[in-house]
Amino acid sequence: MKANISGFPEFLPNEQIVFNRILQSIKDHFELYGFVPMETAAVEKVDVLLAKGNDNEIYGLYRLADKSSKKDLGLRFDLTVPLARYVSQNAGDLIFPFKRYQIAPVWRGERPQYGRYRQFYQCDVDIVGDGTLSIDHDAEIISLVTWALSTLRVPDFHTKINNRKILTGFFSQLVEPNKLIDAIRLVDKSDKISPEEFESGMIELLNNEKDFSKVKTFLETDKRGSMEEILNWLQSLSLGDEFAQGVEELSTVVQILRKLGLSNERLKISTKLARGLTYYTGTIFETVFDDIKDVGSIAGGGRYDDLTTTLGNSKKYPGVGATIGISRLVPKFIELGMVTVDKKSTADLLITVQDRSLVPYYMKLANKFRALGIKTETYLQDKPLGTQLTYANKKGINLVLIANEMEILDSKAIIRNLKTREQKVIRTEFIGNEVKQIFDSFA
Amino acid sequence: MKANISGFPEFLPNEQIVFNRILQSIKDHFELYGFVPMETAAVEKVDVLLAKGNDNEIYGLYRLADKSSKKDLGLRFDLTVPLARYVSQNAGDLIFPFKRYQIAPVWRGERPQYGRYRQFYQCDVDIVGDGTLSIDHDAEIISLVTWALSTLRVPDFHTKINNRKILTGFFSQLVEPNKLIDAIRLVDKSDKISPEEFESGMIELLNNEKDFSKVKTFLETDKRGSMEEILNWLQSLSLGDEFAQGVEELSTVVQILRKLGLSNERLKISTKLARGLTYYTGTIFETVFDDIKDVGSIAGGGRYDDLTTTLGNSKKYPGVGATIGISRLVPKFIELGMVTVDKKSTADLLITVQDRSLVPYYMKLANKFRALGIKTETYLQDKPLGTQLTYANKKGINLVLIANEMEILDSKAIIRNLKTREQKVIRTEFIGNEVKQIFDSFA
Repeated sequence: MKANISGFPEFLPNEQIVFNRILQSIKDHFELYGFVPMETAAVEKVDVLLAKGNDNEIYGLYRLADKSSKKDLGLRFDLTVPLARYVSQNAGDLIFPFKRYQIAPVWRGERPQYGRYRQFYQCDVDIVGDGTLSIDHDAEIISLVTWALSTLRVPDFHTKINNRKILTGFFSQLVEPNKLIDAIRLVDKSDKISPEEFESGMIELLNNEKDFSKVKTFLETDKRGSMEEILNWLQSLSLGDEFAQGVEELSTVVQILRKLGLSNERLKISTKLARGLTYYTGTIFETVFDDIKDVGSIAGGGRYDDLTTTLGNSKKYPGVGATIGISRLVPKFIELGMVTVDKKSTADLLITVQDRSLVPYYMKLANKFRALGIKTETYLQDKPLGTQLTYANKKGINLVLIANEMEILDSKAIIRNLKTREQKVIRTEFIGNEVKQIFDSFA
Repeated sequence: MKANISGFPEFLPNEQIVFNRILQSIKDHFELYGFVPMETAAVEKVDVLLAKGNDNEIYGLYRLADKSSKKDLGLRFDLTVPLARYVSQNAGDLIFPFKRYQIAPVWRGERPQYGRYRQFYQCDVDIVGDGTLSIDHDAEIISLVTWALSTLRVPDFHTKINNRKILTGFFSQLVEPNKLIDAIRLVDKSDKISPEEFESGMIELLNNEKDFSKVKTFLETDKRGSMEEILNWLQSLSLGDEFAQGVEELSTVVQILRKLGLSNERLKISTKLARGLTYYTGTIFETVFDDIKDVGSIAGGGRYDDLTTTLGNSKKYPGVGATIGISRLVPKFIELGMVTVDKKSTADLLITVQDRSLVPYYMKLANKFRALGIKTETYLQDKPLGTQLTYANKKGINLVLIANEMEILDSKAIIRNLKTREQKVIRTEFIGNEVKQIFDSFA
């Protein structure tokens, strides 16, 4: 992978083919669940972006020729805020629960660093309800993401799950209401900072310094055994209504996922999971590799019940969704040699040209193969046959058609397999199913 | 179609499905010709954009939080300039002739008007040579675009073809070198302005006012009969080497296309065709509907021999390419009722839920159908069966699976066709090929 501008990665063609193949597989899974494609414009109004975004990250737009122009437009930083805006605007034309996927680039004006891009793809899948949305959909989304990732044959991974209400319920016992978001943000960062930094930061927020040990114990779910043991422990805590509701929601989602076959290796409750974005209100989850640490999360998402209302719509359209971070995954797969970036081009057959005065004939011949669904190139540069065969070899096109003037007059051509060096003579008058069968058996 | 921000169109889901279907068909055609997918970042350096773009049209980027930041980045306004930049940078890793397609949005900061968008898709297909590129590729590109459009079953269309060398050769006899580009721009605009405006504008540029009649006669190719007659006439004119070379190139391309079956109805030589962009150096073409006038061109392109050198590369990578204007086409097709925007969702089957305590069972059942490639939704909202069937009807899902607790215990379920009202009982233990056959015969 290369980059023209730091943070804006670009693939070479063979890498792009791998990327597209993975994207297509994810898309197929989304459609197998009945999600419809949707595409919002890349550009949003700045006030919509700022309602849920951090202005550090947002790119604004201006017309080069017109520096005094109104600066009211910017590039989207995720696909969830545009979804909420779209649903608010088009609710009358949508069928609820509205299930859509969107696979598209987003932009963040960050300083580029390893694995952090300023343009990257998100594969988002969301379900939005009209007024209400069953908690079962939270389990459905996690199940879909797990299944989509499994069939990509990626290395072992697991999904951490939590509920925002558990975090807010717990911390509202220990900090002032106006410090709640800061406390959750600090939990979100806890894996990236030192234990000392975490401790001093948290003590600053707590009403009572002595509560830090409670916080520490509460966040150490990974030492508490199976999901069922963790759920039992959480259910035993009396930390108010919001906390109890969060535990109940978590329990429902986990139980469904257990029955769908997700083991304790694949699904782990983590009270430390917070997710950075502020719009989550219930279930939150994040999928990470078991052993590969430096790619961060490979998927993540959660429940957002109030996103449309914070965008100014009086009506509630609660949603739950996930995003798969394909832009970080694919380069990692390539780096680890987990996907084969071979020189296979998209062409199956190269028609070589030996008599330049007959170029239209060769081009017509190519069209006959294309009509059969065979991806076919015609070599149109004025080069000797040897150069044409080298081109086929370089591009990984295994089959070439060779015909000189005499053979053309005789309606014959040779198809040669460059790997096995076998060749067969075909008749060129009628290139139909018969030739296709010869072709397939040969390819 | 709706727009959140004027000039930034957004589809409703059913329209998006139509749009994606058309895009997929175009992509399939590109791949049948052996083109590989490529994707450049949406963001380019401003100096690259300005080398061939009009600053009126270009959107620059800035970070919202940081208004004094370097303003050196902007959004691409087409896909050809990024291609030339990409080829210059990655030539060592590419195989030439490099054949790539890119289907992606571009942005232009124009005042929005009917059919003019500020964000729109381009479907670009280009062939780039290393040093040289055979003129035969010009014919190949036009043939590909014609074929791709034909199979979309669009209304009758034809392709106008010309050669920039013919225009520059002709006008270099009549205007000063520094007025050449203005003269060609004026020709490009001639269909959009009044004959009087064209005349006065042209007379201002001409060395000799009396030459206007020559210009007028020269541009009236549509009155001169068949392509062969026009070529004969052009060949009879003595207007210098560049002109003669342009006529020869045009003749080569037209002859190949004639032999590939393009009739005088489908292909028309037009000396009036100029194409706005400045990077074209040879063949230029534009495809328009015969009878639908208000969508402008549906495809267009041409040869650009010097694009990489104007971007500062000392080496020449001549290219020829086309772009299909899908963003304008699809809304027009929908408006004219030429494509069916039905309520067909992407799901084939809806699993209804009658016993909410058995939700995981229904979800597992759905997975079994998905494993067979059947697009399946599970209805997870807590609603009576009637509401669930209404949902299926609204979304155009014809088949529903219905099973109550008793049936589930008995490993049975009913599949009902909502259109024909037929229904069949299936066994749910093994949902394999047998069920798939029942399913297919039934759907």
